[in-house]
Amino acid sequence: MSTVIKASELLLSFEKVLVISHASPDGDTLGSATALIKGLNFLGKKTAFLCADAIGKKFSYLFKDLNLTEPDESYHVVTVDIADPKLMGKLCDEYKDKVELSIDHHATHVPFGKHEWVNPHAASNCEMIFELLSEMNVLMDKSTATKLYTGVATDTGCFKFMNTTADTHIVAANLIALGADFGFVNKLMFETKSRACLETEQKVLSDMNFYADGKIAAVEIPLALLKETGAEESEVESITAIPRTVEGVLLGITLKEKEGQEAGKTVWKASVRAGEPCDASVICKKFGGGGHKGAAGCTLGENLEAKREELIKVCTDYLKEIDVL
Amino acid sequence: MSTVIKASELLLSFEKVLVISHASPDGDTLGSATALIKGLNFLGKKTAFLCADAIGKKFSYLFKDLNLTEPDESYHVVTVDIADPKLMGKLCDEYKDKVELSIDHHATHVPFGKHEWVNPHAASNCEMIFELLSEMNVLMDKSTATKLYTGVATDTGCFKFMNTTADTHIVAANLIALGADFGFVNKLMFETKSRACLETEQKVLSDMNFYADGKIAAVEIPLALLKETGAEESEVESITAIPRTVEGVLLGITLKEKEGQEAGKTVWKASVRAGEPCDASVICKKFGGGGHKGAAGCTLGENLEAKREELIKVCTDYLKEIDVL
Repeated sequence: MSTVIKASELLLSFEKVLVISHASPDGDTLGSATALIKGLNFLGKKTAFLCADAIGKKFSYLFKDLNLTEPDESYHVVTVDIADPKLMGKLCDEYKDKVELSIDHHATHVPFGKHEWVNPHAASNCEMIFELLSEMNVLMDKSTATKLYTGVATDTGCFKFMNTTADTHIVAANLIALGADFGFVNKLMFETKSRACLETEQKVLSDMNFYADGKIAAVEIPLALLKETGAEESEVESITAIPRTVEGVLLGITLKEKEGQEAGKTVWKASVRAGEPCDASVICKKFGGGGHKGAAGCTLGENLEAKREELIKVCTDYLKEIDVL
Repeated sequence: MSTVIKASELLLSFEKVLVISHASPDGDTLGSATALIKGLNFLGKKTAFLCADAIGKKFSYLFKDLNLTEPDESYHVVTVDIADPKLMGKLCDEYKDKVELSIDHHATHVPFGKHEWVNPHAASNCEMIFELLSEMNVLMDKSTATKLYTGVATDTGCFKFMNTTADTHIVAANLIALGADFGFVNKLMFETKSRACLETEQKVLSDMNFYADGKIAAVEIPLALLKETGAEESEVESITAIPRTVEGVLLGITLKEKEGQEAGKTVWKASVRAGEPCDASVICKKFGGGGHKGAAGCTLGENLEAKREELIKVCTDYLKEIDVL
């Protein structure tokens, strides 16, 4: 299956649907899930929702008007914005072989559903859900439009990133015409920072390090700092965009310490942001990660000191390889 | 005259056109002027350009492919994005009575041209120029599309501000389809910061003060700090947006020290940014300044200590007056 028509037919044939978002949920996976559920509710279908991780407080408005039930074996499983079954997190083992429809927009998508609809040209998964709901003749109200706008805006950095297309803007125009509360979403997603987050940002940025003639910039967010400032992990995520914005920087790296699987142990993850002509996913693939050209991520492990050096070396070598250093 | 058709007919009848941008030129007035000139060049017309103030280095790409000549009395004068003849700056006296066509999108527009085409529903003046060039059957190439995208993006904070409409996104979709280099524009306008600017920002933000239960946040940018970091005044302008983005803040104040008229003397100016339901222009009017609801400014004078206290008091009283404190 590869077109929106087949995805629509399949969903119309289901009576009960369980929608799964990816772990560490963001605006696109949650906007997609909630808009799809709202659409299925409009069609009179029973719906359930699952996500491995807690939903950030700022996303709570997405869930206010959904009819959610407890899923059982009779529910058909649909995943949204999930490029790899592993990204279901702790839900992976239970659900990875039960997915009947996987809707995703990642170029790195690994097929895992019985049916798959993957469109790597879509800047956000929410653009696909907009197309799908239109195809299913669902009446999209203000709330559905706001949910979809959330994913379109957050996955494109509010239309700034290179993944943005003419179609992205066409979808945004439709959503605004449908009444999407884009002012509310933009203020919440892009223009609100807690004092704790601001303080964290300042401490992190004041220790920014530069490498490779200033073409690489790197910062670190240790868990101890979050404890000190009281900032939540999800809210400091925006820091990852900053190192790359410094003039002359082609690769911006943010090293983040996370709680590990084992109690008391932590693990370091890297977010890499790349400017033209660099490809962040090439770097992260070398560490077993992945992502897009502009933004990618990987897990480095417990020992930051050794891995930081290795990552900087890989980045430096890459810049030489593509002839920009 | 009030429609694009009449503006188009008028321009098609001119053989020589002088386009004027407003003083302190921004992306919208310059994007409008350069795209219009490029379109007129496509139609074989002679064109000239004037602006009272120097064009910022970052806008130089807009002027690369224009056929510009020295204007004389035979040129027909057209203004773009100019709400009031005074905004022509030092060109006002010479040209205010010679304007044959004024194209503008400000709700506060004061009529001054022989012909006027004003559309306050357009988020940016460049949306009007897009409509105009389409009406004139001008072939819009990649460069013209990039010029127009510059104005659309900068006047809407990259589609974040409330002035954005469905039409804004439709125009953006068209421009991207025409090949607009939106990645280049967005990186340059929204995602590039010099190290000096980043350092200044950090120092300024680390001294942020809060008043009125955290509903007012204020920072200061002394000239000595700019000297210390080497940042230009124009590039630290973006700092003025930050205090208001802190959670809970309704009034964000940035106090900026500027060179005064007299040698050796400096003067302090205030930028006030307001969140709903506040109106920044109400505050600034009390100090002889003005602006919009969301952003306004005023001059405080030489003595910061006394004026800072007065400004904070006026802001606090205002918050009480409108019942949010």
